[in-house]
This record gives sequence, C-alpha cells and structure tokens, in this order.
Amino acid sequence: MLTIKRLSLEDAQILIEGASAKAREIAVPMCIAITDDSGQLIAFERMDGGKITSTIIAQDKAYTAAGAKRTTESYGVASQPGSAAYGINSAIGGRLVVVGGGLPVIMDGEVVGAIGLSSGTPAQDIECAQAGIDLLMKAFAKT
Amino acid sequence: MLTIKRLSLEDAQILIEGASAKAREIAVPMCIAITDDSGQLIAFERMDGGKITSTIIAQDKAYTAAGAKRTTESYGVASQPGSAAYGINSAIGGRLVVVGGGLPVIMDGEVVGAIGLSSGTPAQDIECAQAGIDLLMKAFAKT
Amino acid sequence: MLTIKRLSLEDAQILIEGASAKAREIAVPMCIAITDDSGQLIAFERMDGGKITSTIIAQDKAYTAAGAKRTTESYGVASQPGSAAYGINSAIGGRLVVVGGGLPVIMDGEVVGAIGLSSGTPAQDIECAQAGIDLLMKAFAKT
Amino acid sequence: MLTIKRLSLEDAQILIEGASAKAREIAVPMCIAITDDSGQLIAFERMDGGKITSTIIAQDKAYTAAGAKRTTESYGVASQPGSAAYGINSAIGGRLVVVGGGLPVIMDGEVVGAIGLSSGTPAQDIECAQAGIDLLMKAFAKT
Repeated sequence: MLTIKRLSLEDAQILIEGASAKAREIAVPMCIAITDDSGQLIAFERMDGGKITSTIIAQDKAYTAAGAKRTTESYGVASQPGSAAYGINSAIGGRLVVVGGGLPVIMDGEVVGAIGLSSGTPAQDIECAQAGIDLLMKAFAKT
Repeated sequence: MLTIKRLSLEDAQILIEGASAKAREIAVPMCIAITDDSGQLIAFERMDGGKITSTIIAQDKAYTAAGAKRTTESYGVASQPGSAAYGINSAIGGRLVVVGGGLPVIMDGEVVGAIGLSSGTPAQDIECAQAGIDLLMKAFAKT
Repeated sequence: MLTIKRLSLEDAQILIEGASAKAREIAVPMCIAITDDSGQLIAFERMDGGKITSTIIAQDKAYTAAGAKRTTESYGVASQPGSAAYGINSAIGGRLVVVGGGLPVIMDGEVVGAIGLSSGTPAQDIECAQAGIDLLMKAFAKT
Repeated sequence: MLTIKRLSLEDAQILIEGASAKAREIAVPMCIAITDDSGQLIAFERMDGGKITSTIIAQDKAYTAAGAKRTTESYGVASQPGSAAYGINSAIGGRLVVVGGGLPVIMDGEVVGAIGLSSGTPAQDIECAQAGIDLLMKAFAKT
C-alpha cells in the first residue's frame, strides 16, 4: 500500500486566490483549474471574461502537469521539431498540452496536484499559475 | 483463411519482466503496455511512481507499433515538418504516437504484438522496451 | 493537504493473482484491470481467450468502482428504468459502467483502488473480482 | 505464442457477396462490414441507398460480435431492463451494439471474424448477415 499526499479543497482555493489576484493585477480574466496528483479536477474558476476554449485548456494543462510531473512549458521545449518528444502534443486525444501555463504543485519532492491557467499569453498564464503556487507555499511556511 | 501468430499472456509477462528489470536498473519507474498483433491490450503494469499520463501513452505506443508494424520512433522521423508523414501524430484521435518507446515484437518476420513504454525520456523508454524484447527472444531461443 | 492510501503495483498483482486463479477454476478466460483510487490503471491482464471488448470494459468497470466508490452492480440496480439514476450508464462518454464486475478495494474504510473483471457473465465477473479482493485481504491480514 | 485463424480479404469478399445478394433479393440497400477476430475492419460496402448512420453502426456491430464472441442480438436480450447486462449498450463509447445484425464468423469452434449489417430492420440485417455466413460456409465445404 502506498501513502500519497494530495491537495485538499482548501489548498486548491488558496492556489486559485493567488492566481486570480495576479490575473486581476495584470487585468487578464483567466480560467484557473486545480487538479489533484492524478490530474482529476478539484476546483475551477472562470473569471468574468475568461475564454470559453480556456475552460478545457486550463483543465488539460493542470492534468498534464500533474500526470507527467512537469510543466507544460517544458513539454513545449521538448516537443519542438527535431526534438525527442516531437508530436507528443496530440497524445491522449490532445489532452496532453505543451503550451505553458500548467505547473505541478510539489511538496517535499512529491507532486501533490497541479494548477493550469489559460486565457492570457502563455507567459501571463505561467505568471499567474506561479502566483498561485507562491501563495500556497507561503501559507504552508506559516504552519 | 489466414493463420496468425500472436503473443500469449505468458509472452507478455516476459516482455514486462525484461522491461521492468531494465527500468529498475536505470531507476525510472515506467508504464509498460503489451498489445497483440492487432494493438489490443494483453497486459499492463504501472510501476510505483510511473506517470498518470503514461498509462494512456504507453498503451497507444504499443497500439501504434503493432498496428503500423514499425517503431513509434521511426514515425517521429517521418513526421517532421516538411516530411511526407507530417501531422500523422494526431491521427486516430491522437492514438497514433510518433514519440519513441513503442516497438513491434517480430517473430519469423511477422509482427506478433508490441511493447510500449512511457514515463522516462524517449531514449529510456526505447531502452527498456528493447530489454523486454531481448528477454523474450532469449526465452524463445531456449525452446 | 490530504493523505491518501493507494494500491501499490505489488497489491495490484495480488488482486490479479486471486482473480485469475478463480477464473481458471471456473474455466472462463478473463480480462482483469486494477486501478488506483483515482481510477487510473495500475495493472491489467487479458488471459488467453479473454474478449477484445472486455479489454476496455474491465478497465472502465474498475474506473467506475474506484471513482464512484461503489460496485458497478449497485449502479445496475440504481439505473433501472424509473429509478433515480436511470441513464447514468452513458455518462462520461460511456465509461461509467453499470454492469456487475467492478468492485472498489476498501482498506480501513477508504477506497484505495478498484478491480474490474470482464469476459464472463456479470455473476462470474463479480465472483472472480471478489476472489482477487479476498486474496489481497488475506495478504494484509498476515502482515 | 498463440496461433490464430483469421478471415482473409477473399473470405470477407465472399461474406459481402452472400449478404448483398440477400439484400438485393429483399430490396433493402445495406451497409455491410467485415472485421477480423479482433474487431478490426477488413472490408466494407455501402450499397447505393444504404444509410449514412449505418456506415458506423455496421462496423460497430461487427466489432461487437467479433470482440465479444456473440451475436449483437443476444446482447439485446441480455441487456433488457432487469437483466444482468442492462446498460452495456453504452460501453466502449457506445461502440458495443446490442441491436441485432452483428454475427461472429466461427470456424472449428473459434471466432475468426464477424459480419455486421445495418440499414434494414434488425431482422433484415440478421437475415442478410446470415446469408453472408452461409455462402462462406458453403465455399469452405467445397474445399
């Protein structure tokens, strides 16, 4: 039997709080998805004005980051033409996303969930996702 | 009427044994899928720590290798931008995988099944898949 | 943060061992799938002669039992015409299975994974799935 | 290693010849699908006037009959409300068909492929599918 650490709903809400605060700061309404370590959805918010297509993409970014234990941005690099993971973007029915904005949430070296952002540029999506993780890490540092 | 040779469950277990031994040796927990000559699943193992996304990708690598009678790696070469098979990676709803790690299992010149590995780098996936095939070939050489 | 218990690959192999022993005893070659608590595949075996359609159905039975924390058989009762869950069988693109043969694996009151069998009658599938759970429980009782 | 018998393309053409002759006789333009033992398509014909929806349904009937080693009609009986296989019709993304017209092709006790008909009533579909099998059996009896 294995023992796994996993984000709680309270953790997921802190991730969203941090990400949406940054999204408001840069004035980009975002879709924000939080999954557990298995890529299954825990919480989701579409800020007013967030993109419809991003309701799916944000979830798939978080699924990819949790499931593959890496950022979706890193897959973008690894899957360029001529690289070893070229073509991976259409795997799992296209659910595997190689565009930045999906980040694993890591505690004590273990992936405990992921956050996926979509609606801005990939750089904006990443910035807001990281803001969510920063807020969660600050909350854990206090306890 | 055609007569077809096909991996048995026992053969599939030997393939997994060989692949997982190599995976332990290189310390990369893998997802390992074995399909028959038609790409239908015979056996699967996710080693503790193997990636969630790889549960699907390993199966689809084996499906591709069995179904197309070639390595998924060779499709990666053939589907680069400007090449004739460009874009084939999204075929069959994305099940056709062009990333290395799917190898056909060939007996007397016929594809009798396939092995698909995922969770490491494509080079590691290929190395472990080949180790599975090597062990099966050794087993057949003895009989 | 939550702490979750989850089947290991070794546990999954014991579940398969118990189920396949019963399947041989009743002379019905089975497809046997083991998933974790999130319904993601850990291990799978198609005994020689197991049905092709059952490679999918066994996995989806385990997915349903783990994900919904109940037997697929109980869904069959709850989804009869006129019942409250009528029509649930086509949910999740048809992955939610309401035919018997998917059982959650429960440890200390928590679902830690699931086992799904397919190829026999639902009664046979259930009998073999239960045999897998029985063997795992016996193994845990010893430790 | 297993040794499997499987329909050849020539066999498949005879199955279609027998089924379409009967379809012309009863004046119902049919979709006719032939799969191998794994449910993978070998041959298909849509007679002029055959239904568009039946191009999929005929294939899925043959897939079901080959994969599950039984007629789709028998699944219709087994999956009635209150029966053990109730709800199976939506399995495998709805590919598992429980309407008559899919028949396994059996040689020496082994399923070597299947034939699926669609466009008429289930009774007409079954009649024409059986006519295909009858012609193939006659051809084998001669050799």
